[in-house]
Amino acid sequence: MHLSELTHPNQLHGLSIHQLEQIARQIREKHLQTVATSGGHLGPGLGVVELTLALYQTLDLDRDKVIWDVGHQAYPHKMITGRYNRFGTLRQKDGIAGYLKRCESKFDHFGAGHASTSISAALGMAIARDLKGDNFKTVAVIGDGALTGGMALEAINHAGHLPHTNLLVVLNDNEMSISPNVGAISRYLNKMRLSDPVQFLKDNLQEQFKQLPFLGETFTPEMERVKEGMKRLAVPKVGAVIEELGFTYMGPVDGHDLEDLIATFQHAHKIPGPVLVHVSTTKGKGYAIAEKDQVGYHAQSPFNLATGKAIPSSKPKPPSYSKVFAHTLITLAENNPQIVGITAAMATGTGLTKLQEKLPKQYIDVGIAEQHAVTLAAGLACEGMRPVAAIYSTFLQRAYDQIVHDICIQKLPVFFCLDRAGIVGADGPTHQGMYDIAYLRCLPNMVLMAPKDEGELQRMVVTGINYTDGPIAMRYPRGNGYGVPLMEEGWEPLLIGKGEILSQGDDVLLVAYGSMVHPALQVAEILSEHNIQATVINARFAKPLDAELIAPLAQQIGRVVTLEEGCVMGGFGSGVAEMLLDLDVVVPIKRLGVPDILVDHAQPDQSKADLGLTPPQIAEIVRTAFFSKQLAAVSS
Amino acid sequence: MHLSELTHPNQLHGLSIHQLEQIARQIREKHLQTVATSGGHLGPGLGVVELTLALYQTLDLDRDKVIWDVGHQAYPHKMITGRYNRFGTLRQKDGIAGYLKRCESKFDHFGAGHASTSISAALGMAIARDLKGDNFKTVAVIGDGALTGGMALEAINHAGHLPHTNLLVVLNDNEMSISPNVGAISRYLNKMRLSDPVQFLKDNLQEQFKQLPFLGETFTPEMERVKEGMKRLAVPKVGAVIEELGFTYMGPVDGHDLEDLIATFQHAHKIPGPVLVHVSTTKGKGYAIAEKDQVGYHAQSPFNLATGKAIPSSKPKPPSYSKVFAHTLITLAENNPQIVGITAAMATGTGLTKLQEKLPKQYIDVGIAEQHAVTLAAGLACEGMRPVAAIYSTFLQRAYDQIVHDICIQKLPVFFCLDRAGIVGADGPTHQGMYDIAYLRCLPNMVLMAPKDEGELQRMVVTGINYTDGPIAMRYPRGNGYGVPLMEEGWEPLLIGKGEILSQGDDVLLVAYGSMVHPALQVAEILSEHNIQATVINARFAKPLDAELIAPLAQQIGRVVTLEEGCVMGGFGSGVAEMLLDLDVVVPIKRLGVPDILVDHAQPDQSKADLGLTPPQIAEIVRTAFFSKQLAAVSS
Repeated sequence: MHLSELTHPNQLHGLSIHQLEQIARQIREKHLQTVATSGGHLGPGLGVVELTLALYQTLDLDRDKVIWDVGHQAYPHKMITGRYNRFGTLRQKDGIAGYLKRCESKFDHFGAGHASTSISAALGMAIARDLKGDNFKTVAVIGDGALTGGMALEAINHAGHLPHTNLLVVLNDNEMSISPNVGAISRYLNKMRLSDPVQFLKDNLQEQFKQLPFLGETFTPEMERVKEGMKRLAVPKVGAVIEELGFTYMGPVDGHDLEDLIATFQHAHKIPGPVLVHVSTTKGKGYAIAEKDQVGYHAQSPFNLATGKAIPSSKPKPPSYSKVFAHTLITLAENNPQIVGITAAMATGTGLTKLQEKLPKQYIDVGIAEQHAVTLAAGLACEGMRPVAAIYSTFLQRAYDQIVHDICIQKLPVFFCLDRAGIVGADGPTHQGMYDIAYLRCLPNMVLMAPKDEGELQRMVVTGINYTDGPIAMRYPRGNGYGVPLMEEGWEPLLIGKGEILSQGDDVLLVAYGSMVHPALQVAEILSEHNIQATVINARFAKPLDAELIAPLAQQIGRVVTLEEGCVMGGFGSGVAEMLLDLDVVVPIKRLGVPDILVDHAQPDQSKADLGLTPPQIAEIVRTAFFSKQLAAVSS
Repeated sequence: MHLSELTHPNQLHGLSIHQLEQIARQIREKHLQTVATSGGHLGPGLGVVELTLALYQTLDLDRDKVIWDVGHQAYPHKMITGRYNRFGTLRQKDGIAGYLKRCESKFDHFGAGHASTSISAALGMAIARDLKGDNFKTVAVIGDGALTGGMALEAINHAGHLPHTNLLVVLNDNEMSISPNVGAISRYLNKMRLSDPVQFLKDNLQEQFKQLPFLGETFTPEMERVKEGMKRLAVPKVGAVIEELGFTYMGPVDGHDLEDLIATFQHAHKIPGPVLVHVSTTKGKGYAIAEKDQVGYHAQSPFNLATGKAIPSSKPKPPSYSKVFAHTLITLAENNPQIVGITAAMATGTGLTKLQEKLPKQYIDVGIAEQHAVTLAAGLACEGMRPVAAIYSTFLQRAYDQIVHDICIQKLPVFFCLDRAGIVGADGPTHQGMYDIAYLRCLPNMVLMAPKDEGELQRMVVTGINYTDGPIAMRYPRGNGYGVPLMEEGWEPLLIGKGEILSQGDDVLLVAYGSMVHPALQVAEILSEHNIQATVINARFAKPLDAELIAPLAQQIGRVVTLEEGCVMGGFGSGVAEMLLDLDVVVPIKRLGVPDILVDHAQPDQSKADLGLTPPQIAEIVRTAFFSKQLAAVSS
């Protein structure tokens, strides 16, 4: 059978190991071809091909539910659940999503994109199943990285206390630190466990215990505890913790040995209560270049399959915001030992790997643990350090209470650098950085700023480092800057809460924030062609707003348009409207930005066009809103 | 020495056990008297009197830093750090706070109120200390309950990977399940640990290991692992997990034995890297009534010390919102097995204890784990259940990303019931429910509602249960309702997004939300006395807003006032302003609510008066804003 004939995962039932191996090869081929062509996640998916096939062979996918954590490793799952033929559209507009989506397939039981949610969701489904008297299986597949996220541990802690709720957690462990000899003994021990290890321990070890110096016969009431402890001897690190928390632990299993995997899963399904199967996989398995550089090939832009090298874009691009941010931060940190850069497992994405290389003492990676990252930053700030928390807009949502409770209430000087703020493109709704302005603006003591380009970003990094009165956050978009000149030294901090006028005109006031400033200038040009003269303000700060600059102009001009790359509900424009109303400036205000909908995966430019946020579209909206009589006069 | 003479905790140095016991008695006396008189937390503080004294005797509090988790157990700490004489003002306006505050004392190194933050903050301070080349001690004191919060586990996971960063975590374990015999062996084992147990194990057990059936001499390369495993035999449940995570574990120690505590802490300070001391305490220790009912005496309103009974208030009060909520939910759940109530360790506060008693299968308490609670609810919703997540407004901040990523993006029908929304009174800034409207309003697919009184709350519970198109949230205040009649049956759901007109007038439009609706009616009465006739709208929904009702009235009347008990930045009034501007209704709008400041602890009425939110104050604001000419005419 060829992979393309596999339209339902239950067709895997009854296939021989040899046949499954063939399917595995075909999955890897398609996976590599697709990512090489259109970009996407590479290593995670290649690592779980056998895990996916083996697990699915032991399940009835019409009833049983598999919940994949994060979803970036679910490409094999997608290919065997009816999406093979459309897989070439991966991460493209209207194509297959790069993560999981309930609306994309009935086999995507829980959408994902962020890490650490799968066990909670699977446990919820398992509890519902038992309440309904149903009896399907629920399986969460979670990576070892995602396991460091607090909510995964909360879920394990809860599940471990429910011995009558059947739940299988598959730990996809691609840690490189698992050395062959540990793997060997573990494999041996795992085989013993498959033949009922607990009983084995009970029968054989009782006498041995009595010989231990401090655990002799006088402690027989504690024998149960001791036996529990003894079980821990038989399992490596992860297993001990997991068993303590109430799970039955199995593994580690070689994640590329179909036979072992199938036998283990079959056995695991028979064990009541919460069970964790520890699977040891190799990221990028089957593609030697990716196996060798697992960090580099976690995700990829289009590349040459033979060499593994990225296909260079046709024209040279300006540096990315992330790169300029990291470069600037490092330059400052070299002269200021109080600066500490913090990332939550996003060292490459935020650019902080460079900080790690140059100034390792001033760099902290806490793993996928945004909550801890933020309160750790608070602790550093208490001691006079200058913590810089570089966290994507969407992931900072994880640390919202810590921002409120530990940072804003205590007015601690932590500098938040929100990468990927605004429209993120191919990663889709789970990764859009839409809400940060709204969710941070309402918090007392918070200062919010956004640069119009990568040059201003540099000044804002200086501003953030210099500002020690309380928390301050800077948002900047995913992707490349405009190619404006970068300064090497002599950066000056900006005045907090002060914007600038970029062009002047009497007909309409455009107040733009961050990435919408340059588009606003283009809008002004287009309007000018229609004899509408615009004043353009680069607000720089969403909080505090430059009321002194904006309010008189708004009053005088009488028509206000706000522009932002974020949700308009409660966002920057909402703040401008509040400020003007509070100052009794009662004028019409059009707030442009992302409306109250989810924005799907697509190229950022496609998304902006769909949302009406390109300069020509905005110019048209402004003309219709404020100059329709003029329009009518022209057209008549 | 009497407690009142203790103005600096370093005065504890050199005191004998007998003298410390005297101080302990005096602390308990003052603690009991104060809480009996003014209310507050009782059990937690009484449980850590000896822990506090012993720890502080082993530290130099001019340099060393103790970070208390939550802070409700820090009353003894407050009494011995210069606040004894003012302790009678506990939780009263301008008095001593019920939680920790950096601005209250230099010994409050990190403010708290929410759980699970202390290890992150302490680790941040420890890392800063090492970067600065300083050498003070940092100690986090955390309860076993707070340890279930994901961020505490994130912090432990991180600290455990920093073997060169000295950090002491004191686990205040007041779990009642620690039985005497376990305590006995643990005490014995702990004493062994004090005399270097690791060495002891190494010297004596090596030979014994070889006799174990599957761990014989052939496994010598694994000996180190085995020895690590053996160490785990010597420590109870918590210890094993903690040691696996890289900590040195000590305990459990009897938390009321000063001598043992001091010896343990002294030894712990000498161990490098992360250390956890497990202290077994009794909640309410020293007050028999509280020891017996540890749940009931966790926190108390004023009570009779001799009987332990609450002092009845002078007049009978209407039922609390929480009580009406729980009563209504139970009535519905009795006839609908799909309803599942979820709490994150707030069963009593949310009223869900009643659900647990009546319908235990339809009740889930996940512990202090709001993130897991919300995504668990998502999982339940996927399976067609009707999950009701009853979480305080302030604690729901912990689950913000889960609300965005797991609920709103997937449009899952979870019903959020936000208790303690608005001004909470004596608990102060960490507990104020100020931001929920702003942080939820910006999320697609979310419906927001708030009842004007406990009768309408009943209808909104019905509405929330009936609404299955996506997530819906209801906010309601802390405290008692108005005493309006409760319905026993025949509740009708409300129309989503529809408000109601409560009174009509041509001069000003008051649009009120939730707890501000009844005050708005009072405002209208006061205005009427000044010949100003107000239309009062009970908005019921903050999202979607009833544009059909509000916009034409706003246009016609030309003066709008919005009223809400929450932050005005991005809040309900901001939404009304957005809606009107989007509909080209350009009229003056005054948004009244909580300005962009932190609201300190006080009686709710005192806070409202300070914020200008009493009906007479609001009426005055309205008159000044819109009718100042009229005022001038009257006064001239």
